[in-house]
Amino acid sequence: MTNQLIEQLFVPAFGNPALNARHDGACVELGGIRLAFSTDSYVVRPLFFPGGDIGSLAVNGTVNDLAMCGARPLYLSAGFVIEEGLPMATLSRIVASMQAAAEAAGVAIVTGDTKVVDRGKGDGIYINTAGIGVIESRDVIAPSSVRPGDAIILSGDIGRHGMAVMAAREGLEFESTIESDCAPLSGPISVLADAGVPVHCLRDLTRGGLASAVVEIAQTAGLHLRLDEAVVPIREDVRGACEILGFDPFYVANEGRFIAFVPADAADLTLEILQSFDVCQGAAVIGSVSETPRGLATLKSRIGATRVIDMLSGEQLPRIC
Amino acid sequence: MTNQLIEQLFVPAFGNPALNARHDGACVELGGIRLAFSTDSYVVRPLFFPGGDIGSLAVNGTVNDLAMCGARPLYLSAGFVIEEGLPMATLSRIVASMQAAAEAAGVAIVTGDTKVVDRGKGDGIYINTAGIGVIESRDVIAPSSVRPGDAIILSGDIGRHGMAVMAAREGLEFESTIESDCAPLSGPISVLADAGVPVHCLRDLTRGGLASAVVEIAQTAGLHLRLDEAVVPIREDVRGACEILGFDPFYVANEGRFIAFVPADAADLTLEILQSFDVCQGAAVIGSVSETPRGLATLKSRIGATRVIDMLSGEQLPRIC
Repeated sequence: MTNQLIEQLFVPAFGNPALNARHDGACVELGGIRLAFSTDSYVVRPLFFPGGDIGSLAVNGTVNDLAMCGARPLYLSAGFVIEEGLPMATLSRIVASMQAAAEAAGVAIVTGDTKVVDRGKGDGIYINTAGIGVIESRDVIAPSSVRPGDAIILSGDIGRHGMAVMAAREGLEFESTIESDCAPLSGPISVLADAGVPVHCLRDLTRGGLASAVVEIAQTAGLHLRLDEAVVPIREDVRGACEILGFDPFYVANEGRFIAFVPADAADLTLEILQSFDVCQGAAVIGSVSETPRGLATLKSRIGATRVIDMLSGEQLPRIC
Repeated sequence: MTNQLIEQLFVPAFGNPALNARHDGACVELGGIRLAFSTDSYVVRPLFFPGGDIGSLAVNGTVNDLAMCGARPLYLSAGFVIEEGLPMATLSRIVASMQAAAEAAGVAIVTGDTKVVDRGKGDGIYINTAGIGVIESRDVIAPSSVRPGDAIILSGDIGRHGMAVMAAREGLEFESTIESDCAPLSGPISVLADAGVPVHCLRDLTRGGLASAVVEIAQTAGLHLRLDEAVVPIREDVRGACEILGFDPFYVANEGRFIAFVPADAADLTLEILQSFDVCQGAAVIGSVSETPRGLATLKSRIGATRVIDMLSGEQLPRIC
């Protein structure tokens, strides 16, 4: 429904080339420099969950959106909407987590704003971050650069963030604790660039998960994205939790996972680089791009049948980020 | 209290030179270009008020913060936190108002995000905008550049935004409708720069009004700011509304007013330029800067007495922006 809102309300109203590109962030020119600029608001419930909290999420989410534009993230802003009565200790813990995440990602939080709303008119705290990064490569890393023959590489196992938040929110206990994959992705992506890997497109797998990302890119690129279910890594505990709760892990949000589109002959080098980072240890080729049927993403299931991947209608897991 | 939060929590945690400058926005270097970067969240109640709405406010507020850094505003991001049940017509009206304000200010809204929170967990809509502008001048426009002898120029009458919102919120009726002064200030400021006026510092008079702005600048610059109450323009209806409601117009928020610090011999040219713009027609010299008593702002009252201007403790008018 957010997608509909974007298509029907925001794009027609604000329409401009940067917004129309439907990217994780905008790529704009400024005095001969190419910048990426992105924003996200974070309303996750609960504020703290295994593997992260609203603070680390707010930093890594925007850092990753910039990285997906092929940018080196540099500066963040932080806007806080705080509900009257939020304990100061909670706020301090969130702020400390943001600063730790910013240091880990190599960005500085340089400007901010705080608004306090009356008790009952917020939900503890909402955080918005916006970020600026510099795009050093001349290649355009975007859905429009995806080409037939490209390999689709997934950076690691999927479904952890959504299930971690869900379990924390509902007080569910599984055999093992599922931790969010929340992490900055700018490191591995800058090394891909430094190694000269001709990356065509990057997309992090947040709201709507892997499935929504491939549907969106197939539609924007006007190409066919074909995934192979059997090679998509999913941890057994995540798969089990999804089965119990009736979720499809392909649609569950991640906060430290992305897909990369690279020419088939660059796939091995890409995998080698990604797997050298802890956060991308589980990287794998999960599919490829072909010409037709245009605008569709399909999945070859474990038993060999092929089905069309749909865009999620409604939110499977609200308030996940 | 926001001020205390900033001093005691955010600055120590995120501390870096850009944040430490206590400016309306951060000034950062990027590939040899100087950028201004600023953010604000908007939680105003009601959403619509005479002279503006949360949408125009969200655009003009961030445009003005960039202008106060001496930057030419270029790009905005927009983050929406929407409460479930907000009528689509209300959202459309706000979005249209944002686009009109962006066009008027010469900026493009290039990236955005939407989150929906459960009914009762928001308050209709909160909007965050962040903005990027380019700083073309080599002068540092900041509190640290204020010098003894500088003239303090106010761009127009004060107190309208706060009283307009207050009247709309409480359903008060005065003889005339008080309209918010909400407007972009980037136009007059860029003309000051083009004319070579050596502007030392600019500050818009939002939360806390004129009084808080001069106290903050006196403290940061370590100089004495002396204002003359008799020459500060306040409309009669605004003064009357303030008297009835027990507000001091010096502390009431404005959304289209600023003060400029310029060398005394540049004051006439500054006034001439500002008064040529509708939004700054009422510009006037309202005081001057001297060496001591350091860190204090004082007001010569209409009857000739001089008193120290205090920082507002607590919020005189909550949810005003």
